[in-house]
Amino acid sequence: MRQSELFTKTLREAPKKEKSLNAIFLQRAGFIHKEMAGVYTFLPLGLRVLRKIENIVREEVKAIAAQEVLMSVLQPKEIWEKTGRWSKGLGREVMYKSFNSPEGLKKGEIGLGPTHEEMITNIVKNYVKSYEDLPLYVFQVQTKFRREPRPRSGLLRGREFGMKDLYSFHSCEKDFKDYYEKVKKAYFKIFKRCGLEAVLTEASGAGFTQGFTHEFQVLSETGEDRIICCPKGDFARNKEISKVRAGGKCPVCGSILEEKKSIEVGNIFPLGKKYSEAMDAYFFDQQGRKKPIIMGCYGLGTSRLMGAVVEIFHDNKGIIWPEEIAPFKAHLLYLSSTKSEFAGKVKEAAETTYKFLKEKGISVLYDDRKGKSPGEKFADADLIGIPWRLVISEAVVKMKGNNVEIKKRDAEEMQVVSLNKAAEILMKQAV
Amino acid sequence: MRQSELFTKTLREAPKKEKSLNAIFLQRAGFIHKEMAGVYTFLPLGLRVLRKIENIVREEVKAIAAQEVLMSVLQPKEIWEKTGRWSKGLGREVMYKSFNSPEGLKKGEIGLGPTHEEMITNIVKNYVKSYEDLPLYVFQVQTKFRREPRPRSGLLRGREFGMKDLYSFHSCEKDFKDYYEKVKKAYFKIFKRCGLEAVLTEASGAGFTQGFTHEFQVLSETGEDRIICCPKGDFARNKEISKVRAGGKCPVCGSILEEKKSIEVGNIFPLGKKYSEAMDAYFFDQQGRKKPIIMGCYGLGTSRLMGAVVEIFHDNKGIIWPEEIAPFKAHLLYLSSTKSEFAGKVKEAAETTYKFLKEKGISVLYDDRKGKSPGEKFADADLIGIPWRLVISEAVVKMKGNNVEIKKRDAEEMQVVSLNKAAEILMKQAV
Repeated sequence: MRQSELFTKTLREAPKKEKSLNAIFLQRAGFIHKEMAGVYTFLPLGLRVLRKIENIVREEVKAIAAQEVLMSVLQPKEIWEKTGRWSKGLGREVMYKSFNSPEGLKKGEIGLGPTHEEMITNIVKNYVKSYEDLPLYVFQVQTKFRREPRPRSGLLRGREFGMKDLYSFHSCEKDFKDYYEKVKKAYFKIFKRCGLEAVLTEASGAGFTQGFTHEFQVLSETGEDRIICCPKGDFARNKEISKVRAGGKCPVCGSILEEKKSIEVGNIFPLGKKYSEAMDAYFFDQQGRKKPIIMGCYGLGTSRLMGAVVEIFHDNKGIIWPEEIAPFKAHLLYLSSTKSEFAGKVKEAAETTYKFLKEKGISVLYDDRKGKSPGEKFADADLIGIPWRLVISEAVVKMKGNNVEIKKRDAEEMQVVSLNKAAEILMKQAV
Repeated sequence: MRQSELFTKTLREAPKKEKSLNAIFLQRAGFIHKEMAGVYTFLPLGLRVLRKIENIVREEVKAIAAQEVLMSVLQPKEIWEKTGRWSKGLGREVMYKSFNSPEGLKKGEIGLGPTHEEMITNIVKNYVKSYEDLPLYVFQVQTKFRREPRPRSGLLRGREFGMKDLYSFHSCEKDFKDYYEKVKKAYFKIFKRCGLEAVLTEASGAGFTQGFTHEFQVLSETGEDRIICCPKGDFARNKEISKVRAGGKCPVCGSILEEKKSIEVGNIFPLGKKYSEAMDAYFFDQQGRKKPIIMGCYGLGTSRLMGAVVEIFHDNKGIIWPEEIAPFKAHLLYLSSTKSEFAGKVKEAAETTYKFLKEKGISVLYDDRKGKSPGEKFADADLIGIPWRLVISEAVVKMKGNNVEIKKRDAEEMQVVSLNKAAEILMKQAV
């Protein structure tokens, strides 16, 4: 894409009152626009990143046999009353409710979905009669709404945010546990593809379940969570529920435990029979006995993941996107001074390079803007954070053959290579 | 996909109280699930159709240089007050508004977006300084919310529904009109790819503008709209604003005008300066004069389009999907009786056919279910409405070579062809 055609521009100033690093960089670079506290619009660059994250998540959960649906945001009161969550727990604490309702509905009878256990159970029960209909796995990638009291962390804690929620339905605990292990593996793949090293920790069940749950945490100095973990990876637990503290011994290997700051990027809840019993979701087993369906749910915040990546991958100049979720693979800068006798040749070489890379199937943001100094273009490129930087300047054009300067976003030195070599480097890095 | 793994099943009975044809067929066939009046979940088959429609729309509006964003559903009161639409017009009539707001917000200060003129103008004005930043075109594919008083038409009139909304920004009326013509052409392409013949009619501006607007209508006996149109295509106007009536003469060619029932599937509004003046969205022209941006907006209901297609393409047995938006290209049915000595061979031939078609890149729903009679399988296939039907039965297996019966969903007779020939037929029809 030509940067001259991109309708957003970088901003010099961080927006007022914005303190979180991800929100500052993402707004300055033109990825998101703030509508209210905790509510953001995704601009063209930001939507490209979000869609890449969503597609990675889709691929990995479809690979473990999950089927995609899209449930409604609007939630009828009745199904939440069946589980008791309309007036306590999640429904009381974070659900937006009582929108002024249309005819035929009394005030307070509609909510905005903060999660979808009630709705999916209410749907799935229509299609499950016997053990032969189980197991089944259903997910959606959707917008969730939660009345967060203090949404001050940019995309990390939004009132409106993107989420992948997966629900599994089983005839027995053993089958649920087998799937739970598959989801864990899929989650590690997802985080790895997004450039993140995740740690699996035990945590409390929040409003979802009474037992323990698993959280996926990524280490970050700006994270809101605290985890107690073993340096060898043998133990990790959310500080909230950990009986041992930093300085204590790992219960598995005896190493000295550490406390780390982290960002929760995913979670897994064993729901057991809680929702199936409340919502009348039963099946007949092989012996013809009626039993409640065993359930699990698996959350992953897609927009939060985007925020977490920025918290972790940046320097003081801007974002450094991991390759697989970057808005573009390469940022091609055309540097020219109108005074130069080479101006026309530099422009021509830049256009040739852009066409060449596009034909090779490489996604390129081409900074073809006129009247911007090299300094401005480099500063914008650093802020936007596309992983590979290509430069066509007077110096490059003066050499023999079709060349380009290339470097990674966070590398110090550029090197001059032929166009073919540049394409080879970029295509090798493709996932 | 194997139908035995699809978690939805067809339903014999239409849901109670549902009178609209699209809602009845789509629910019975397992495309959607009703959550409340006017609020539906998209099940796996339904989501496949919706995504295909969305992607057609994306392709065609990207082809006319529109850039994709994703705006927030939650709407701050302030921006709607600037245009006066918070307490009158659309904001008063159909916007869902909140009572229980989070800390720091008073009651009633949040709405759910029924449309996004205010929000997009508030975003775009940050990036437009001079005439050189114009024109620009921005769209989103997003979920909209409207408090429809009588949502009784399935996907045709929802309280929560999918929409593509495109907004254009120009430095002069002439430039707007040129783009308006491009969008008209893009819309006709979209409807054609979805199998629909649309008629462009003039209509009133609803809450968006004071002048006339254009609507895209598709003729349907179950449509809620009435249009007065010329049989030669020289004139078409929404009955609401037409001064001539059926039986009168076409003002262009003199033919006798007719009244038709139709479904509105898209609209185009010339917004002029209404939103830019109210929201302080100005630019400097070539002479350095400050001027309000000229705007247009272009709506297209993606989920409504899905409903309209069902209203138009069906018979008494079920849906007949147009090729490009069908959930699958082909429905492969395996018919067998366990009594038959050929049972094993039929199953084997069906599996071979399924693998063969998948390898050719043809999307297939494979009815591999055991214990279902041929009658049940044919009835389900008719209801679901996939455009091509393939059958592997005892009769086919008894022949020499690898064969399959093939027919279109709405054809009477099947013909037996080789697998290669079947693949050739299916691939020729691919768009």
